[in-house]
Amino acid sequence: MAYPPKIHQDDNKDHMLAVIQQFPLATVISVKDNEALVTHLPLIYKNGKLVGHLDKFNPQAEVLQNNQPVTVIFSGSQCYISPSIYKTEQLPTWNYVKVHLKGSATAIETPEAIKQSMLDMTTFLEPENAYVLKANDPKMEAYLPYVKGFEITISHWEGKFKLSQNRNKEDFELATQELMKRHRESIELLLNRIL
Amino acid sequence: MAYPPKIHQDDNKDHMLAVIQQFPLATVISVKDNEALVTHLPLIYKNGKLVGHLDKFNPQAEVLQNNQPVTVIFSGSQCYISPSIYKTEQLPTWNYVKVHLKGSATAIETPEAIKQSMLDMTTFLEPENAYVLKANDPKMEAYLPYVKGFEITISHWEGKFKLSQNRNKEDFELATQELMKRHRESIELLLNRIL
Repeated sequence: MAYPPKIHQDDNKDHMLAVIQQFPLATVISVKDNEALVTHLPLIYKNGKLVGHLDKFNPQAEVLQNNQPVTVIFSGSQCYISPSIYKTEQLPTWNYVKVHLKGSATAIETPEAIKQSMLDMTTFLEPENAYVLKANDPKMEAYLPYVKGFEITISHWEGKFKLSQNRNKEDFELATQELMKRHRESIELLLNRIL
Repeated sequence: MAYPPKIHQDDNKDHMLAVIQQFPLATVISVKDNEALVTHLPLIYKNGKLVGHLDKFNPQAEVLQNNQPVTVIFSGSQCYISPSIYKTEQLPTWNYVKVHLKGSATAIETPEAIKQSMLDMTTFLEPENAYVLKANDPKMEAYLPYVKGFEITISHWEGKFKLSQNRNKEDFELATQELMKRHRESIELLLNRIL
């Protein structure tokens, strides 16, 4: 099959988990009445499943249950690669690290289980315990009635790691350096324009 | 309507264009036979439309034509916000800058017009002319038969700018500082794990 190009596919599950764990903000895509519903949510990988919660008023909440199909995208870094950075002659391209997952969603039914998923998520996101979410935190208790919890059983994994692997070693390394440089620069530029 | 929370919606088109122009890598979502097709592609905003091209063997190519509906997501930065960074007491959250667009796609039919869209894209992405794509570039000529061009007419704009605007001024500023710090740090950590 000519698509997707094999050179940019990474089947290594550890590499995909590295993206999921370091960039937990997932783009969660459901299809309802032939239309895409899209929400951005952190998901935590636990016991082979992805676990999260969302605003109960979000229209996507009702399709994140009953084993309904869902597509989940995790996004690592990305940047434009100017041919000017290479030693060899090339066309412009765009590099990125993405993980595409397909699976099915089921609701986490009880408030206690949703609460536990929030505690797990916070423990994962606070490896140095700068903040500790307590099981009886009153803000969390007040928040629980406004969310729905869900977990996703993953049926299909796809690592899309487009990092100029099709170039020679020197150009490949120049492309990864460019990714770091562009990634660092982009945030100041954006906030200067929108705030 | 309780969803989405108004405080995080930004209707300012200039702000949305800032995201589109600074983070041109779009997540392009089509629905076919009730399934989501997703491709990551740079899109350039020109004359009020989004213009791009993709691998002609990509199964999504056949639905990016004939005015078929498409959802496009542009992603600015994002990060986990630990309550430990605030002066006031809060729950953990995730901040992000996203632009959601809906529209319809039509094919760019002629190789000449696709070529022009590549020249326009490169000019936009090379503001300092570090690299100039020439109209008769032989690599581009060889590449043209393997892509399909398309443009998207936008019918619906939505800026999802979740930046702790619901916190007091001091905490809001601490959250934007955290976004910058986390953004800068994340890329080294990722590449160390996957390369």
